[in-house]
Amino acid sequence: MYFASDNSAPVHPKIMEGLARANNGYASGYGNDATTRQAQAMIRELFEAPEAAVYFVATGTAANALALASHIAPWQGIYCHPLAHIEEDECGAPEFYAGGAKLVLIDGKDGKMDPANLRHRIENTGNVGVHNIQRGAVSITNVTEAGTVYNLNEIQALTAIAREYKLPVHLDGARFANAMVALGCTPAEMTWKSGIDVVSFGGTKNGCMGVEAVIIFDPAKAWEFELRRKRGGHLCSKNRFLAAQMEAYLTDGLWVRLAKHANAMGSLLATGLEKIESVTFQHPQQANMLFCGWPRAGHELAQAAGSMYYPWPAEYPETGPADEFLTARLVTSWASTPQDVDKFLELIAHTG
Amino acid sequence: MYFASDNSAPVHPKIMEGLARANNGYASGYGNDATTRQAQAMIRELFEAPEAAVYFVATGTAANALALASHIAPWQGIYCHPLAHIEEDECGAPEFYAGGAKLVLIDGKDGKMDPANLRHRIENTGNVGVHNIQRGAVSITNVTEAGTVYNLNEIQALTAIAREYKLPVHLDGARFANAMVALGCTPAEMTWKSGIDVVSFGGTKNGCMGVEAVIIFDPAKAWEFELRRKRGGHLCSKNRFLAAQMEAYLTDGLWVRLAKHANAMGSLLATGLEKIESVTFQHPQQANMLFCGWPRAGHELAQAAGSMYYPWPAEYPETGPADEFLTARLVTSWASTPQDVDKFLELIAHTG
Amino acid sequence: MYFASDNSAPVHPKIMEGLARANNGYASGYGNDATTRQAQAMIRELFEAPEAAVYFVATGTAANALALASHIAPWQGIYCHPLAHIEEDECGAPEFYAGGAKLVLIDGKDGKMDPANLRHRIENTGNVGVHNIQRGAVSITNVTEAGTVYNLNEIQALTAIAREYKLPVHLDGARFANAMVALGCTPAEMTWKSGIDVVSFGGTKNGCMGVEAVIIFDPAKAWEFELRRKRGGHLCSKNRFLAAQMEAYLTDGLWVRLAKHANAMGSLLATGLEKIESVTFQHPQQANMLFCGWPRAGHELAQAAGSMYYPWPAEYPETGPADEFLTARLVTSWASTPQDVDKFLELIAHTG
Amino acid sequence: MYFASDNSAPVHPKIMEGLARANNGYASGYGNDATTRQAQAMIRELFEAPEAAVYFVATGTAANALALASHIAPWQGIYCHPLAHIEEDECGAPEFYAGGAKLVLIDGKDGKMDPANLRHRIENTGNVGVHNIQRGAVSITNVTEAGTVYNLNEIQALTAIAREYKLPVHLDGARFANAMVALGCTPAEMTWKSGIDVVSFGGTKNGCMGVEAVIIFDPAKAWEFELRRKRGGHLCSKNRFLAAQMEAYLTDGLWVRLAKHANAMGSLLATGLEKIESVTFQHPQQANMLFCGWPRAGHELAQAAGSMYYPWPAEYPETGPADEFLTARLVTSWASTPQDVDKFLELIAHTG
Repeated sequence: MYFASDNSAPVHPKIMEGLARANNGYASGYGNDATTRQAQAMIRELFEAPEAAVYFVATGTAANALALASHIAPWQGIYCHPLAHIEEDECGAPEFYAGGAKLVLIDGKDGKMDPANLRHRIENTGNVGVHNIQRGAVSITNVTEAGTVYNLNEIQALTAIAREYKLPVHLDGARFANAMVALGCTPAEMTWKSGIDVVSFGGTKNGCMGVEAVIIFDPAKAWEFELRRKRGGHLCSKNRFLAAQMEAYLTDGLWVRLAKHANAMGSLLATGLEKIESVTFQHPQQANMLFCGWPRAGHELAQAAGSMYYPWPAEYPETGPADEFLTARLVTSWASTPQDVDKFLELIAHTG
Repeated sequence: MYFASDNSAPVHPKIMEGLARANNGYASGYGNDATTRQAQAMIRELFEAPEAAVYFVATGTAANALALASHIAPWQGIYCHPLAHIEEDECGAPEFYAGGAKLVLIDGKDGKMDPANLRHRIENTGNVGVHNIQRGAVSITNVTEAGTVYNLNEIQALTAIAREYKLPVHLDGARFANAMVALGCTPAEMTWKSGIDVVSFGGTKNGCMGVEAVIIFDPAKAWEFELRRKRGGHLCSKNRFLAAQMEAYLTDGLWVRLAKHANAMGSLLATGLEKIESVTFQHPQQANMLFCGWPRAGHELAQAAGSMYYPWPAEYPETGPADEFLTARLVTSWASTPQDVDKFLELIAHTG
Repeated sequence: MYFASDNSAPVHPKIMEGLARANNGYASGYGNDATTRQAQAMIRELFEAPEAAVYFVATGTAANALALASHIAPWQGIYCHPLAHIEEDECGAPEFYAGGAKLVLIDGKDGKMDPANLRHRIENTGNVGVHNIQRGAVSITNVTEAGTVYNLNEIQALTAIAREYKLPVHLDGARFANAMVALGCTPAEMTWKSGIDVVSFGGTKNGCMGVEAVIIFDPAKAWEFELRRKRGGHLCSKNRFLAAQMEAYLTDGLWVRLAKHANAMGSLLATGLEKIESVTFQHPQQANMLFCGWPRAGHELAQAAGSMYYPWPAEYPETGPADEFLTARLVTSWASTPQDVDKFLELIAHTG
Repeated sequence: MYFASDNSAPVHPKIMEGLARANNGYASGYGNDATTRQAQAMIRELFEAPEAAVYFVATGTAANALALASHIAPWQGIYCHPLAHIEEDECGAPEFYAGGAKLVLIDGKDGKMDPANLRHRIENTGNVGVHNIQRGAVSITNVTEAGTVYNLNEIQALTAIAREYKLPVHLDGARFANAMVALGCTPAEMTWKSGIDVVSFGGTKNGCMGVEAVIIFDPAKAWEFELRRKRGGHLCSKNRFLAAQMEAYLTDGLWVRLAKHANAMGSLLATGLEKIESVTFQHPQQANMLFCGWPRAGHELAQAAGSMYYPWPAEYPETGPADEFLTARLVTSWASTPQDVDKFLELIAHTG
């Protein structure tokens, strides 16, 4: 009953096999090797983007911060949701990498930026000469940090506004696969066909050991990214072992299968919880991350039985006295099992 | 005949086994797991430093830049040799992480800072109030970028000066093991017992997949380091897989054996080359990295036979017309074989 | 009828005389001169702070950014109101000087941070280990950017919270004098006696040519400030001419007289506007800056007659159709005259 | 007998008059005023550069750091002489403003970069992919920090190399006027006609109160500069008072007259000192700054008589035992008098 985070799951055996396969004799360092080229080619093909620049880094924070810093100037803003990982969970990495840029928060329901709010804030940025920060980039998170999924129309509503103001759009796809299978679309549809310029394409949360690809559709930004990556200490000498994970991840649709499983476990959990009267959902379940609350007694029982998950600050609507009703974040992963879900549901139902 | 770099060698099988061992069920992220605690404990014991703060990052540049940034202010200098990796090979990572600090170059023979030069520059830093940068940290590289090894007396001569001015001392130990086995000393003797405050303890160049430990002997700097690591995107969610490499690396003296082998191959190579009349050494061979030159014909033959190594800018003493006599950097590793060395020597001898 | 900004007013003749007086033969540079020492001593006496470190810089943005950067780390937050000058009008200077820190916005009525909001955000900062930015400094603006004045109780309510969490408090006093005369208190009461640690003490908007003092009550931060000032290019070689302005400004209570006049002109304007039926105030008038709206026709008439002032984005409550009812910011200064105010009121009343 | 620094001299009366003239009623802030436009126009005309962007800041460090930061990326180098003000006297301001760039030191005689050294270092920068910092800008100081003057041929030798590698060239002209009158050339000849792209055009050391112009010949960099200036806290609200100094400075050739006088006083001093047997010159005198040494007794006598000047670290050639022979920096200014020079010479001659 481990629902604390998808990055607590083990590495999928196929990824481990990929690492072993890559560990074959000498290879040039710093990405100048056959495995890296192969993984890059696979991504270009998957994304139908033959010109895209593709890089591998070990963490999502690195992917996001490097991608954003390569697309804005230090005196520009990054528009994102208040719950965005770049705002809440990276200890200021975007500000650090972008030389002191400002994250401009665009609120909206269920972890999604509201297009009208976005337009309003863009209109009111950089319109008084040098005095305020200038318009920069838009950063969308999908799956959102509320566990919901922007559909293609919602993505396009935001990117259309960005386009109007000639602003680049970044996609934080730490859970790219989970969003994509939820939408039933292609990688290209979820990205450049919907107006995304640069993607953090996550692997770590979906079965890899530690790898995220950064995909830059306009290669004009590639060289700057490479310099920033090196300067940030994110260019691995034995780069083949980042690439090998990605290669295994993308081979034979492994990544899609793992995400489908994780989402299915999320749905199983949600369906079960919805049936329990005392459970209240904070956001709709759409992928592999759920936010819902129930009475304290249920939490105590679940934890006593060894369940792992994080309590969540339900800042927006308080749905009950704090000491009676507590909200949890539940995350399923490729490694979650129906047995675990069922056992967990039983515990909660018991007190519900 | 692969002498291009020790980071081009494959991962040692024992390290791969360690990764597989760590891939066992769920584990908390971000270093809060048993494998991480175990690897940290091993390092504290090896270094006889029960209070030391120990962290794992994926690259040497990250280790160096984070370690240095945690010990100086942006308006301070970092004293290092002109050939130091932090000066020559990190695209300004220390300056980036340290908020615009300055590397102050201390020349000296064979890649080693000259103590008199160090004292002179410290004396002439920050002695005119706010106008110049202030005294910061000293960074020593061992094995040096010239392939030589500072002995304990040489290290202590530098750290004594630093101590006098109350400056912290960083050791870039990307090839820590190679230096240590060359000196025949203990980890503690090569570090805190010789006045070192913070160490980049390399694993990647000596058989790991990608891990370096940062060891901070005075834990007062630990929290700042942790924040800088996160903010730099260097805190891995599945941190256990960095730690697992380190654990396997340190188990049963694997790291020492691998370094001894690499150094032995370096000696074999050196001994053979010294016998060839046309070969001139730029620096004495003391570990697993050699710098020497020979006539162009020898290079052509070696390369035609598939040898891999980098030409080197022999900036200091030109030992012959550039088109006749070329200098090479030859690096041996845990994976080098006597057969490779012999074959290579034969090729060079043939034209010598 | 010039109400565009108090920094558009000329320099007061007494300040010009002060400059002439200081222009007397040679003087050591960089603040090591008698005029600087004299102005520093005057400030220490006025603020009843004999130990305070006192510096002069040419702009308010420099004062704020340097003061804040000297009190926080790059991974910390600065709590301020969404309308604060540091958030809205400095093109990211605090983020730049503080190495990529984050401004955390604390909303509240009439340009004042709400204490409950402040406490809530502090509680929710840095409480998840390294993942989020950490708690940093609180920055209060008085006179606020809404033209209102925090009274001593209101200041103390905020500083008490900061104190509880051991956070330093900065006061952006670009209009320090206007706030102080509005409150009828002493400089010490408005600052350290109310829990303020560091002050940007403005001169420029109240009759000086271009000088702001930074007053640091705890001199432990002084040396860092001096290095940051130099490094930011804000240490003037002919520093005596910054100090000379401040000396003249503080002599014989000139600064108090000028602020009283500016505030009196603000009151005169407010009293007159309140009598005009069509005029709606956005915030109460408490010093020398007013925010109010009236129908378009009145704006057209006023502008045709040569009035100068800025339209204002009345983002919060829309009080009428945008094309009918427009909000203005009106700022009075030491140079405003009752005649100007009366003439302006007549114009507005005419269409009201 | 004040030869400590030209920035210790008072403000010239004509500059004070200019300030008084500008203090005439209300004026828009932040450079949007008639005085600023007038001073900008004068500079464009003087430099025969009708398209140039022209800005005013209060300090030379700000001018240099902002100019350089606007022309390079954080991962690039700035080539300058080891004695350059940006290297020695700005507490790392260029590194700070340029986001952690590296100053690459190009040695050469008498404070002038040697063209061969420059070419060599450019060739060896950024030639190994992302691993090292990349080629950035060249910064020339004229008058040099050794008191010598690059002639037009020498400037062009350096800019030709920069041009070859497509690198921008900055001129630190803190003593622009002194260099220009020494060369007998026009402002255009000393700058863009000789390949300079951006100039710090000093006023402060030659009679102004505190103003330096930054002149950017290619206006494509102008907007970035404006944002950096604001963000650095260097956009003055009452900008007219920076401009007014510059206007007065340039009116009727005041700036040229003042520099000629300062240089003439430098020559008078040099001629006198050369006649004294015990005096040894460290560099040839070419403008208003001299570096020479004489026995300790002469220093003691001069100081006892009230002479002001700084001892200098004669790092290169030691010309005598440190306790017997001391080097001094002597700087003349617009305010120096022949009487002062003669009196000083007498004192030194006495012990010579």
